[in-house]
Amino acid sequence: MSDQPGLPADRPSADLERLFAPRSIAVLGASRSPGTVGNAVVRNLILGGYTGVIQPVNPNAAAILGIRCAPNIAALPEPPDLVVIVLPAAIVEQSVAECADRGTRHFVVISAGFKETGGEGAQREQRLRELARRRGLSILGPNCLGVINTDAHVCMNASFAREMPRAGGLGLISQSGALCTAILDYAKGRGFGFSRFVSFGNKVDISEIDLLRALASDPQTRAILMYVEELSSGPAFVETAQAITHGANAKPILAIKTGRTPQGAAAAASHTGSLAGSDEVYDAIMTQAGVVRIESVEELFDVAQVFIDPMLPKGRRTAIVTNAGGPGIMATDACIRHGLQLAKFQEYTTKSLKFQMPPTGSIRNPVDVIGDAKHDRYRAALDAVTSDEGVDQILVIVTPQTMTDVIEIAQVIGETREFCGKPVLPCLMGMADVSPGVELLQSKFGMSTYTFPENAMRAMAVKCRFAEWTRAPLREARRFEADRAAVERLFDEETAAGRHQLVEARALEVFRAYGFTVAPSELARTADEAAAAAEKMGFPVVMKISGPTILHKTDVGGVKLNLRDAGAVRDAYAGMIESVREKMGADVDIWGVLIQKMLPPGKETILGVTRDEKFGPLLMFGLGGIYTEALRDVSFRLAPLRENVATEMVRSIRSYKLLEGVRGEPPSDLAAVAESLLRLSQLVTQHPRIRELDVNPLLVYAKGKGAVVADARIILGTAE
Amino acid sequence: MSDQPGLPADRPSADLERLFAPRSIAVLGASRSPGTVGNAVVRNLILGGYTGVIQPVNPNAAAILGIRCAPNIAALPEPPDLVVIVLPAAIVEQSVAECADRGTRHFVVISAGFKETGGEGAQREQRLRELARRRGLSILGPNCLGVINTDAHVCMNASFAREMPRAGGLGLISQSGALCTAILDYAKGRGFGFSRFVSFGNKVDISEIDLLRALASDPQTRAILMYVEELSSGPAFVETAQAITHGANAKPILAIKTGRTPQGAAAAASHTGSLAGSDEVYDAIMTQAGVVRIESVEELFDVAQVFIDPMLPKGRRTAIVTNAGGPGIMATDACIRHGLQLAKFQEYTTKSLKFQMPPTGSIRNPVDVIGDAKHDRYRAALDAVTSDEGVDQILVIVTPQTMTDVIEIAQVIGETREFCGKPVLPCLMGMADVSPGVELLQSKFGMSTYTFPENAMRAMAVKCRFAEWTRAPLREARRFEADRAAVERLFDEETAAGRHQLVEARALEVFRAYGFTVAPSELARTADEAAAAAEKMGFPVVMKISGPTILHKTDVGGVKLNLRDAGAVRDAYAGMIESVREKMGADVDIWGVLIQKMLPPGKETILGVTRDEKFGPLLMFGLGGIYTEALRDVSFRLAPLRENVATEMVRSIRSYKLLEGVRGEPPSDLAAVAESLLRLSQLVTQHPRIRELDVNPLLVYAKGKGAVVADARIILGTAE
Repeated sequence: MSDQPGLPADRPSADLERLFAPRSIAVLGASRSPGTVGNAVVRNLILGGYTGVIQPVNPNAAAILGIRCAPNIAALPEPPDLVVIVLPAAIVEQSVAECADRGTRHFVVISAGFKETGGEGAQREQRLRELARRRGLSILGPNCLGVINTDAHVCMNASFAREMPRAGGLGLISQSGALCTAILDYAKGRGFGFSRFVSFGNKVDISEIDLLRALASDPQTRAILMYVEELSSGPAFVETAQAITHGANAKPILAIKTGRTPQGAAAAASHTGSLAGSDEVYDAIMTQAGVVRIESVEELFDVAQVFIDPMLPKGRRTAIVTNAGGPGIMATDACIRHGLQLAKFQEYTTKSLKFQMPPTGSIRNPVDVIGDAKHDRYRAALDAVTSDEGVDQILVIVTPQTMTDVIEIAQVIGETREFCGKPVLPCLMGMADVSPGVELLQSKFGMSTYTFPENAMRAMAVKCRFAEWTRAPLREARRFEADRAAVERLFDEETAAGRHQLVEARALEVFRAYGFTVAPSELARTADEAAAAAEKMGFPVVMKISGPTILHKTDVGGVKLNLRDAGAVRDAYAGMIESVREKMGADVDIWGVLIQKMLPPGKETILGVTRDEKFGPLLMFGLGGIYTEALRDVSFRLAPLRENVATEMVRSIRSYKLLEGVRGEPPSDLAAVAESLLRLSQLVTQHPRIRELDVNPLLVYAKGKGAVVADARIILGTAE
Repeated sequence: MSDQPGLPADRPSADLERLFAPRSIAVLGASRSPGTVGNAVVRNLILGGYTGVIQPVNPNAAAILGIRCAPNIAALPEPPDLVVIVLPAAIVEQSVAECADRGTRHFVVISAGFKETGGEGAQREQRLRELARRRGLSILGPNCLGVINTDAHVCMNASFAREMPRAGGLGLISQSGALCTAILDYAKGRGFGFSRFVSFGNKVDISEIDLLRALASDPQTRAILMYVEELSSGPAFVETAQAITHGANAKPILAIKTGRTPQGAAAAASHTGSLAGSDEVYDAIMTQAGVVRIESVEELFDVAQVFIDPMLPKGRRTAIVTNAGGPGIMATDACIRHGLQLAKFQEYTTKSLKFQMPPTGSIRNPVDVIGDAKHDRYRAALDAVTSDEGVDQILVIVTPQTMTDVIEIAQVIGETREFCGKPVLPCLMGMADVSPGVELLQSKFGMSTYTFPENAMRAMAVKCRFAEWTRAPLREARRFEADRAAVERLFDEETAAGRHQLVEARALEVFRAYGFTVAPSELARTADEAAAAAEKMGFPVVMKISGPTILHKTDVGGVKLNLRDAGAVRDAYAGMIESVREKMGADVDIWGVLIQKMLPPGKETILGVTRDEKFGPLLMFGLGGIYTEALRDVSFRLAPLRENVATEMVRSIRSYKLLEGVRGEPPSDLAAVAESLLRLSQLVTQHPRIRELDVNPLLVYAKGKGAVVADARIILGTAE
């Protein structure tokens, strides 16, 4: 709890390389009995073709599966690079310590009986964690399936999975061991291969962040698949994933995130607090991290498949070549639905197609080579379409019809992909009839095929968006000048006085110190002071009650708008004090009334922050009033924001159009909103004491006219 | 074009029974050459095990595949019940006529070369259609794959598909023949069986509506799957589908509808016209029809699978039993995401589970029997959970772990399903390891299994919604009293005068005649008349210019609000006339100014109608202003509306909450809105001349206070 969220773990990814490529592995709890986990691990290491030394450890067996057993750790001739533990939970800690004494630094703890059982198990896990930290060890698990590396130099199946998967370009990490079993079985059925396959269980030490880094640096891994139930740290996840999905060796990350957080407590003191906590927050984090969020295992592999070919499309302009009309229409629909563009052909392409296609075919996109097409017609169509400079990627659909020479067409598709320099995705519809083509593309060209055009197109769309994301630079937000020390002093004063919710006047001081434009305002302690302050700033004014315990000013009659002269202000003052005392009790602590210049009308927006233990500060943006409260139309991002993320955040609310200006209104000052979000990001990053915060409303004016903080609330964390 | 939309075709479904179960079939264009369609059809009939007489017709062959050929139709000993035609397009019409002369009434035209080739082909198709109508024939196709009926009494594969599918409970109809080929191949791979399988191609005569009816009356068909690119008639589709999905023999319809309509022309004269035409309209029609719209072929089968067990759940309360935590979480997530409820167990269930489950398991929903569970523990958990009266349906997850006895567990699941009286869906995760269990459930219990919990849960949710839909009665809308004749006269007058867009005053008369509450208003032809009218109805008033060519009153300065005395009205009158003349030319036809009582503020809503050739009148509902224009937050339904559909239509806009009352506002008069929609439905159904219509705004007041038409526009169709 005392860990500072927001700081990525600093384990160097090189540190885990030995875990994935140990020269020797000891198995503690190795067993002679078939069907036990201790037997399965040794068996898997042998049958998987592990290239290093296997050392079973068991005091009661001379040999296991033909390999001489050591009775205990001390008896091993040399310390193994990796120790796999399948012992009862109670003796795991002790065994790890002994191995560490002998010099081993890497462990896979398969044993269950830790945090997942609560009570004593949880304490055991905490002790194991402390041991790992103290001794500088790397521990995978406990309560996991193990780890697999298919690299030909290693060939390690240090797990109790039923068998070694095929080698391939997918790296997978999973919090659920049982899911791993099912995934291996499923992937086998669909012919997918893996580079590394890691079940990380309770993550006592090695987290999903560490494993993401390890897969990122593995040259065999082309795409990273993950299943996770809870993230260890939101900010570290965002930062790590952003780094992995950018740069020369960018890799896509596809994630299934399950286990929704409970709805934010209804009693949360701020809007943001009550709106956050929903699953949409995870969506936002994944978006910010550049991670593709996936709903199901089937979709996971469907999408992963497209990344087996590392070539990224240059744009969204998609061409379709098909030998059947219906599937062409399905592909077109999916193309539009998933935000791709149907390519418009250049004149030379159309001419070439017209010359070569039969008159009943279609020479516009989708190109229909019609049902009797053989491979030569496919080749002509593909040559024309792939040379078109207005085409970024191509989907080729083959339905098995009477004349269709599937194998020859597959050959043409494979050759086209090799020479054309653009992504070409084959969709061979059906299962049995097209299978020779599927096999040829797989074995000869390393290409994977889709069964139906909708799935292919969805995957192409994901790849396009990944290509765009990975090309967009990651820019740090600019740094704004701010009086950080003044805000610290203010927070000290408030905390010292035992006040954790700042009254509006003090909250506004904080925003002024961070360079926000804040509505002119002054705290008046008497009716006369109120009238004088109003005279000074000019009418009309707004009056708001001010007191450290008054949270909902409007509800207690503590807000008056549009007061147009000193008399009205004086009257309002008395009335307001009376109303508040009546509603909240005569002894309510009233500091006075905040007199504020009435602002010209603008678009009401809300900025908010809530701080989560794992995510750190979570920023919220929305339009004010009903849009936020009733329609929950808000967007979230984690602080610190990068430069362009603020703009994205503003654009991603559903009612964004209202800020662009509708019905003849001028567009709103979006730059001012984005800047406000960036300033807010800096404020909450520099002041971890801010627990929750609302700016409600931030009034936004027409383009170039800025945005003004009209009211704000800040809640500080209690000292811990 | 001249066909009246909205009328379902009146072909009795019995009429098609002979098509699906002919006693004899002639194949025109039968061929001796393997690989030709004419050969494939005869071969398929023979190998499919057709129980009737096959009669190949070919003037140049003595026998085909061992069956004596007739040289021509005249030479057949008796008229066949069904004729399958694979002749060149040019001689199809002639051949059909000859067969009809001999007494055949049912045809499958596989030949291509009709509408899909345009020009001459389209004319051929039109002639064939006329021939069918004239002679009372039933023609499937042209340009189709054919028809398959797996019923053991028929066993007819009258298609050129590569082989006969397995018999099963799914009926499929498809507009695309190529897709059929792929689907057959795919379904074979996944083990699905079909009752009837129909490729209907260009639907010269037999439409998807006819086929839906035929599948509905087929006892072998448990679920109807359809792929359609364009609907023949919206209203007939809605009516037919509603009938099929209700009543004692209700069957689900799952549809893939591709081929989006182009975006409504930007120049459309009404809001409704410009918002309709998008794909959302199809979504609305499918919803209204009770049809489940599906996006992809894989999803089609995934969902169809759940209907192989005809038992429907009584509610949404779902229990999950699993032997692994991760998949349980995935199932829980999917349960919530798809709108199901996680069942809360009764105390006796919890007690029973506590007694029988190991301490490390979970006895709350999802029940985790943990990884070492064998079939006895599954049985105990399933017995407890299925007897709980708070459980409507059960998902059983089995991951293949070391101790898992898959076959025995499958046996327990099958027995549980047979005796518990609630839907039980097995999810056997993976592929290879669980396959003996999958096979046992399939072969012994006729149960189909899912590979992953998300897909299973999605399908369960579809089945729940279908169960709710099928139980909800289909009630005709009440009939409102209306002066239909007066409206007809008014339309006659306007049409006679060559005016197709009604001025507001006349449009409001129409709404008055249909019992809407309409804002009091009067047309004034001079400033004095205007002032007098305003005095009479009471201030404040609104003034709006009135003239047959003035479409956008606000744009030309033709609207003034909140006029508070006679002087203001007089001034406004002169100013308005001047402004309109300036903007639209001095010779603009001005009828005067409509004086209208200014209404108290209410929630602005919009009702609209646009009439589509195929759909008939399409109704639209939305909140006014930005919600409709900028956010496109509207709902559509086809007229005539049933009683409860109007309420549904109101509820299905995204911003519905605003009508329920937010921020302390009272809830709006939703009953009045729904009634307005029902009255509107009656109006446009009784007056097919109305081409487009907007009520903008319909002002809605607090519950019990009604809704008032404040402005309206009606556009009549030009005489055709």
